[in-house]
Amino acid sequence: MAEPTLTIEGWYALHDFRTMNWAAWKAATPQEREAALLDLFDYTKTLRTRDQARTSGFGVYKIAGHKADLLFVHFVPTLPDAIDMEVGLDKTRFAQFMSKPYSYLSIVELSNYLSKPDLAPEQDPELLPRLHPEIGAMADYICFYPMNKRRMGDENWYMLKMEQRVQLMRSHGMIGRKYAGKVTQIITGSMGLDDWEWGVTLYSADPLTFKKLVYEMRFDEVSARYGEFGSFYVGQVMDDTAISAYLRV
Amino acid sequence: MAEPTLTIEGWYALHDFRTMNWAAWKAATPQEREAALLDLFDYTKTLRTRDQARTSGFGVYKIAGHKADLLFVHFVPTLPDAIDMEVGLDKTRFAQFMSKPYSYLSIVELSNYLSKPDLAPEQDPELLPRLHPEIGAMADYICFYPMNKRRMGDENWYMLKMEQRVQLMRSHGMIGRKYAGKVTQIITGSMGLDDWEWGVTLYSADPLTFKKLVYEMRFDEVSARYGEFGSFYVGQVMDDTAISAYLRV
Amino acid sequence: MAEPTLTIEGWYALHDFRTMNWAAWKAATPQEREAALLDLFDYTKTLRTRDQARTSGFGVYKIAGHKADLLFVHFVPTLPDAIDMEVGLDKTRFAQFMSKPYSYLSIVELSNYLSKPDLAPEQDPELLPRLHPEIGAMADYICFYPMNKRRMGDENWYMLKMEQRVQLMRSHGMIGRKYAGKVTQIITGSMGLDDWEWGVTLYSADPLTFKKLVYEMRFDEVSARYGEFGSFYVGQVMDDTAISAYLRV
Amino acid sequence: MAEPTLTIEGWYALHDFRTMNWAAWKAATPQEREAALLDLFDYTKTLRTRDQARTSGFGVYKIAGHKADLLFVHFVPTLPDAIDMEVGLDKTRFAQFMSKPYSYLSIVELSNYLSKPDLAPEQDPELLPRLHPEIGAMADYICFYPMNKRRMGDENWYMLKMEQRVQLMRSHGMIGRKYAGKVTQIITGSMGLDDWEWGVTLYSADPLTFKKLVYEMRFDEVSARYGEFGSFYVGQVMDDTAISAYLRV
Amino acid sequence: MAEPTLTIEGWYALHDFRTMNWAAWKAATPQEREAALLDLFDYTKTLRTRDQARTSGFGVYKIAGHKADLLFVHFVPTLPDAIDMEVGLDKTRFAQFMSKPYSYLSIVELSNYLSKPDLAPEQDPELLPRLHPEIGAMADYICFYPMNKRRMGDENWYMLKMEQRVQLMRSHGMIGRKYAGKVTQIITGSMGLDDWEWGVTLYSADPLTFKKLVYEMRFDEVSARYGEFGSFYVGQVMDDTAISAYLRV
Repeated sequence: MAEPTLTIEGWYALHDFRTMNWAAWKAATPQEREAALLDLFDYTKTLRTRDQARTSGFGVYKIAGHKADLLFVHFVPTLPDAIDMEVGLDKTRFAQFMSKPYSYLSIVELSNYLSKPDLAPEQDPELLPRLHPEIGAMADYICFYPMNKRRMGDENWYMLKMEQRVQLMRSHGMIGRKYAGKVTQIITGSMGLDDWEWGVTLYSADPLTFKKLVYEMRFDEVSARYGEFGSFYVGQVMDDTAISAYLRV
Repeated sequence: MAEPTLTIEGWYALHDFRTMNWAAWKAATPQEREAALLDLFDYTKTLRTRDQARTSGFGVYKIAGHKADLLFVHFVPTLPDAIDMEVGLDKTRFAQFMSKPYSYLSIVELSNYLSKPDLAPEQDPELLPRLHPEIGAMADYICFYPMNKRRMGDENWYMLKMEQRVQLMRSHGMIGRKYAGKVTQIITGSMGLDDWEWGVTLYSADPLTFKKLVYEMRFDEVSARYGEFGSFYVGQVMDDTAISAYLRV
Repeated sequence: MAEPTLTIEGWYALHDFRTMNWAAWKAATPQEREAALLDLFDYTKTLRTRDQARTSGFGVYKIAGHKADLLFVHFVPTLPDAIDMEVGLDKTRFAQFMSKPYSYLSIVELSNYLSKPDLAPEQDPELLPRLHPEIGAMADYICFYPMNKRRMGDENWYMLKMEQRVQLMRSHGMIGRKYAGKVTQIITGSMGLDDWEWGVTLYSADPLTFKKLVYEMRFDEVSARYGEFGSFYVGQVMDDTAISAYLRV
Repeated sequence: MAEPTLTIEGWYALHDFRTMNWAAWKAATPQEREAALLDLFDYTKTLRTRDQARTSGFGVYKIAGHKADLLFVHFVPTLPDAIDMEVGLDKTRFAQFMSKPYSYLSIVELSNYLSKPDLAPEQDPELLPRLHPEIGAMADYICFYPMNKRRMGDENWYMLKMEQRVQLMRSHGMIGRKYAGKVTQIITGSMGLDDWEWGVTLYSADPLTFKKLVYEMRFDEVSARYGEFGSFYVGQVMDDTAISAYLRV
Repeated sequence: MAEPTLTIEGWYALHDFRTMNWAAWKAATPQEREAALLDLFDYTKTLRTRDQARTSGFGVYKIAGHKADLLFVHFVPTLPDAIDMEVGLDKTRFAQFMSKPYSYLSIVELSNYLSKPDLAPEQDPELLPRLHPEIGAMADYICFYPMNKRRMGDENWYMLKMEQRVQLMRSHGMIGRKYAGKVTQIITGSMGLDDWEWGVTLYSADPLTFKKLVYEMRFDEVSARYGEFGSFYVGQVMDDTAISAYLRV
């Protein structure tokens, strides 16, 4: 039996994707739209305040393409908090103008693959803010995708020895380090929680960086031989003013 | 031909997932909602009583994410009972505010992989309560997923000799034993009944335990080389008071 | 080129699955429901009479889980008959309360894998009733699933020599023979007719037998190395009285 | 680099599958249904005339099972013609009673695998009618399925030498020749046009022949090792009188 | 670790596929249709002007088959521009007559596989127009498909040495060169942006060329062993006059 890597966990993450029913939104009366927006901004204002207070994390994004229009990102202390975030949005009068095409439940995870030899991850001041991320402080563009490590014939990540995995991840991490300052990466684990093993949330001031980073990493053995990837979602942050503009019809 | 493992079966299990049509629920009149809730609580009260009486098992959960909103778990003596549970809910006035995104039909199964050498499983007082589980006595958080054992080239569980499978499962079971007291696991077999070979229902007072357990097991050869997993559903139990609060709009 | 097995064919089979729109059914007026049931029972009575007369085969089942609510099984002499069965149901006033989530078109097939050395299958009086099965005489529980024989690398059923296939199927058939009297199995071929290579329809007085049989067979090399399986549908027979009770709201 | 096979192309083929909304059709007024049929028969009459004149090919079929109810087969000289056929049907008043579950775009293709040594395919009078097929002259039953040639590890059709492919296809063609007179086969290529590499359209006076042919071919190495198959659609031709009867409610 | 290929990027590409709701379009009043067309042509005129001015790229196509009816192709300088293109269309009064079955987000990418030894790609005047393509100048027929390079066992593109990839791509490019003047190809990278690794957009005056090109390339090792392909979409360009004719009912 291969030895699992030690991990420490932070906040639960719920990536809550929504698709606008623009036809219904446009067909609504101004009063209905106003009421819907009132509920929506009640919801966002409360959560933005908590994000600033670092009691939970929250952000809203417009997403490119048919897979979703909006993404509500939540980082919260408990699983019931995550469910409440989703149901809370569902109960707003704005929710009836949206459907729910996708979501992802996971939990912030720091592994010790990259930890400093003499410092446990949970005592590393550089890693700690990633356990409880402040979403409002992130760069403007977001990229989210879920992923697995392959278990197929000779390419079985979970049958590798710990030393092999540590070495492979170290090389993998060196690519990441080249992008330090350009990309913030939040790794969330989702075994036992959702359909893939991990979620990856990237933030950058330039979305081209997402392509450059994912492209370069794909040539690294960890991704090339062991990475299996789900759908990619890319979007741009919206504050409440931007949401208002986005929803003006 | 590899020799199959002996199994003994208990109650049928129906995991009945539902998605709320929140727009319709909010658009309903207070009288319609009241009537719907009346039917719903008639249904739940009857089944909770049976659960306490140990004549069948029943629980209601709110589920995180877009895959489902509610899960009605049923453990019943016969297949017609399972169908009746589903149709009984369908006929309530509450059902028209829900759709049915997923379900799973299986039957409680105890294998003799882990049985004590001198004691047949059906005579083992530790195993018996698992054939007819009392759902109301379980911890608050639930995790459900279906799974297969792989049959692919050299990784074919069903072509292994019985001794190999017993040894692999013993090592696998030792991980489970580390989580004794933290997680209750109900294995249900579904060959010939539904689309995967088994269902796994986990209960824990801390949903992080689901991640820790599934993560640790994935490095074990049984999962690493032979496990294939379907969707994971995670939720929190609701008694009727919690259901009322959940449905308040 | 591997030599194909000789087969003889009987009636066409159409497994016609339907999902109830319970909300519309409950919202209908008593007059509308009465008219719908009149059409439905006209349809079922005609077909049950033919089933008893052995001019075609017919049965109605309630199915567990979200994949379908009802299954109408038809065995008919020709392909146009099969299409007529489906369209005939579509044209009843009951059909508008159902959708069509799945169906399967195939034809009863007897292979000579298991035939007696000195007797051609079509002259074997034990096999003949299976070419034109009387559905109303079957046991109460039904299990249906489609399947393929694998063609992948070294595990390619269709590249095996005839002798190997005969020997493998003989061993496979011996498991089936252990269940004689407990399970009736109808094998229908569907290459060139539907998306899988075969359909398997099992009947038993105890649905647990489906699990026991499929489980035991999975350890047999034919299933373990060469079997690929679609969705499993399990249900209980309904005569017209049971249909009335099922549809009472 | 393996040398590609030479091909010559004929008409574009559009297989346009439709699903009836029987509930809406039955709910329509007799006047609405009459108007819809007027449009539909304008459409079919025009195209049947062209089929007889050999300026394009056209046929209508009722399809068994839930995957589709109707199939409109078009063979036309250009891609814009194919799009026009689809949009032309969409614009009839009948189209609002149908949805579009599937379609397939391809182009008649004759390869020189089976060509006579001293005669180029385009000069072979036996092959020419297949470039511009007269659909109305075909037998009553149709079978359509898309397919790929496998590219996986050691089983990679496109890495075989031309000689190997020619030899394999010759053996494959010999099975087809056994069915000469019983089955007419139209091979249409769809690389660069639709999601599979080829479409196969079979016509026969007896649909059992589809099963016999596909079954026998599956044991041939070309199919056994290199064939990957999509969904199979089987149906029966309808002239306008048969369409009227089919749509009578 | 294999060394990645250098790439330079141009405009973002959004392929925005739409499906017509013909029933709703025909049921609309002439005034509603006029208003919808007014919005649609405002949208197209603005974007066609920009395309001619080379500040962004734009084209509208009618697509064959059920997968989509319309394709709006956008090439724009930034990701927010791409999202604006989609939302801008969603907000027109025409959008409520369409749904969004598919889309693809990518970015124009030139790799140095085929670059001249002494000239960096970004300085090559032949390649530069492909970074910022003028869509209105392209030929009439379009073919779009997404693709991956395979990472499976021995067939792992990303584990090949740079020299091997360069050599394979050179041979691959020689096929493309045979089609110079017949096909214009725009390669867009989508790692980190959408679900496949690349998008391929082909333009030709004869859609048969798409089949010929894709067919010939499939025998080349790059495609035969390493190519994995998504859905193929084929269509014909429409100027505003053609759109008017297309939408006339």
